[in-house]
Amino acid sequence: MRMVDLIAKKRDGGVLSKTEIDFIIEGYTKGEIPDYQLSAWAMAVYFKGMTSEEVANLTMAMTLSGDTVDLSPIEGVKVDKHSTGGVGDTTTIILAPLVAAAGIPVAKMSGRGLGHTGGTIDKLEAIPGFHVELSAEEFIHNVNEFKIAVIGQSGNLTPADKKLYGLRDVTATVDSIPLIASSIMSKKIAAGADAIVLDVKTGAGAFMKSLDEARALASAMVDIGRELGRHTVAIISDMSQPLGYAVGNSLEIKEAIDTLRGEGPEDLTRLVLTLGAHMVVLGGKAESFEEGYQLLEELIHSGKALEVLKQFVVAQGGTAEVIDDPEKLPQAPYQVHVTAPVDGYIHAIQAEEIGVAAMQLGAGRPTKESSIDLAVGVVLTKKVGHSVRQGETIAILHANQEDVAAIAQKIERAFVIQSDACEESALIYDIIQ
Amino acid sequence: MRMVDLIAKKRDGGVLSKTEIDFIIEGYTKGEIPDYQLSAWAMAVYFKGMTSEEVANLTMAMTLSGDTVDLSPIEGVKVDKHSTGGVGDTTTIILAPLVAAAGIPVAKMSGRGLGHTGGTIDKLEAIPGFHVELSAEEFIHNVNEFKIAVIGQSGNLTPADKKLYGLRDVTATVDSIPLIASSIMSKKIAAGADAIVLDVKTGAGAFMKSLDEARALASAMVDIGRELGRHTVAIISDMSQPLGYAVGNSLEIKEAIDTLRGEGPEDLTRLVLTLGAHMVVLGGKAESFEEGYQLLEELIHSGKALEVLKQFVVAQGGTAEVIDDPEKLPQAPYQVHVTAPVDGYIHAIQAEEIGVAAMQLGAGRPTKESSIDLAVGVVLTKKVGHSVRQGETIAILHANQEDVAAIAQKIERAFVIQSDACEESALIYDIIQ
Repeated sequence: MRMVDLIAKKRDGGVLSKTEIDFIIEGYTKGEIPDYQLSAWAMAVYFKGMTSEEVANLTMAMTLSGDTVDLSPIEGVKVDKHSTGGVGDTTTIILAPLVAAAGIPVAKMSGRGLGHTGGTIDKLEAIPGFHVELSAEEFIHNVNEFKIAVIGQSGNLTPADKKLYGLRDVTATVDSIPLIASSIMSKKIAAGADAIVLDVKTGAGAFMKSLDEARALASAMVDIGRELGRHTVAIISDMSQPLGYAVGNSLEIKEAIDTLRGEGPEDLTRLVLTLGAHMVVLGGKAESFEEGYQLLEELIHSGKALEVLKQFVVAQGGTAEVIDDPEKLPQAPYQVHVTAPVDGYIHAIQAEEIGVAAMQLGAGRPTKESSIDLAVGVVLTKKVGHSVRQGETIAILHANQEDVAAIAQKIERAFVIQSDACEESALIYDIIQ
Repeated sequence: MRMVDLIAKKRDGGVLSKTEIDFIIEGYTKGEIPDYQLSAWAMAVYFKGMTSEEVANLTMAMTLSGDTVDLSPIEGVKVDKHSTGGVGDTTTIILAPLVAAAGIPVAKMSGRGLGHTGGTIDKLEAIPGFHVELSAEEFIHNVNEFKIAVIGQSGNLTPADKKLYGLRDVTATVDSIPLIASSIMSKKIAAGADAIVLDVKTGAGAFMKSLDEARALASAMVDIGRELGRHTVAIISDMSQPLGYAVGNSLEIKEAIDTLRGEGPEDLTRLVLTLGAHMVVLGGKAESFEEGYQLLEELIHSGKALEVLKQFVVAQGGTAEVIDDPEKLPQAPYQVHVTAPVDGYIHAIQAEEIGVAAMQLGAGRPTKESSIDLAVGVVLTKKVGHSVRQGETIAILHANQEDVAAIAQKIERAFVIQSDACEESALIYDIIQ
């Protein structure tokens, strides 16, 4: 088999066999097939696409290119959740204890973030004492005992995906649905998921700008799950404004606690319950979406979900105190109010800009080497559809310095305020399963 | 400027500016842009094509990527000729002295061949004493004095094309008209051509299998010539059987001499006169194609063309004796007749197979390191449209060993003989200017 012939086959619209895809991914991982052949192949895939079977075979080849996590010592169906990224997305930290309370084992391997705010681990570290340095045995034990544990990423998971993603990034071959879908799914499967719930974001602040693109990506991933025996459901949700109100590490932990108390933002709560209800169904703890949704609402109202969060935090060294009193989370010394420049209605809040502002305040890492300030961030006080009067506060910056005028101005500009009334934006556009 | 953005621009069907194309080719030549970006870009060009202006800019960028030959000390319009390759193509060796006899300066930089037979220099070296080691001054002097000289390739001509061609070969991006056209034209312009006549082959034995493909390539090259001020004419000619009868170095020299004597194969003679007539018009030595054609016929009949060949050979150290007596060219010790296996009419002669057979006899180089035997090759005795009887000779192998049964069988199989009559194949399909 020669790589040049496989490039030509894809270029001419041919369907690659499992053997051929394995040859490509194994050869590339081992360095036997050079970057310049993979990039030409990726561009051919960009133009010619892949069948569901090809994408599934590509996903499995990338899954098996490195270590895989064995979650078989954990009882129950391991349902993982993945979001395609957005701004102020606190869903994981709420969902994990919530579905754990419903009996779904949450065995999460997580990373540190690069971008607007920290990753799940950074956010959790806003809780004093919390750590993710568990041995494999502790990790498995905690999940079986409390239904939830989070561990730092270790091992060499999906090296083919890492290498290919780096190459795609510099060869204009990122925007290919089969390549995006297989990249996401290979990581979830390598991390041991039996079933997967996906939150595919769409809108100006998301990677998939249009609903059609988001639907295509969601369908591709659901197809992969079907082909590979990992039941997968995708929710397509709005990212034309940040989710919830808080963007920043401590600020999002507080918002997560509020939500688990039943006092969270309406949009965040509804998305969490929707994602969670599908997870509960996939995990066999409810018969229907409606039953799952109701079950999770009850776990919030009864305080059981919050109780699981406390157990989880304590089991990993954290102080449960902050759960009862979130004011004890790291606090920024300065609060700067951003006000509306005119009377009117909010038509949009450019999520990307809010995210960048939070990063500039110190909440996220512009590069791998940056350190982050867990206390800082942005809290919106108004959302799309709300009316505002000139001078009314629309957001509060939590800063570690007094002079944040330039960042405040960026936030102000992210709000699109017009004189005509505007409806609240939709939250969930579609569910693909 | 970032290469990844230029790949994306071409991927999305955009038109690259001269500055952008210069950036790509200069960066690639210097090694500042890596192979993996160029290959992704080449695949995007494969799918999205290029405008005439883009192809012209690409051609010029590759022309200027290395040394260029300055033919300005040579008087007159330097008209070069290029063939897209085929089997048994002796046209250059006939055309060069023929158009020189008409007053067109022929200043040819030529190479050694890789493939079925040797290149022009290998073939000329079948003439005892002939050499191409001329100084630049001798080369210019000879062209001004005799209107013709051939020199070996020197200098670093079109390094960008060499590098890009090597990459395209292993990334399934060879078959792209803009990339093929710019590759050919950049080499001709770097070699100093003022005007160019192209012989674009089509048919089973050619790179462009269909007439449509050949027309598209021819048009692209004529457009480049127009954009860059090098008047270009393309003849589309048949390669569904070898041109003429001889395939092999000495054998083709003999056929060239025969043709310059007016005793050559009809197809070869007609193609040479057609190409030459266009060269003579481009070089300002005839008003019309018809006038040019007639002029060249006269130069053959008067013996003047043959006289120029002799002067040229002598000026480069060769013995004119072989021109008068081609039997003194290197001769192979064995002649093996291949006969028709059945009665019938010849419908096709697979040129590619004949070429490979000649190479296996030793006439060509399978790799750069191979040495070639100037004496060996194949001489067809029948062509498409001819009738044959079982046992009648259809080709003669000139071999340097007695046992060539396998090669003889290959030749026999290259002849498609059927019982129904068949017309002679067309020779010239179209002229694009």
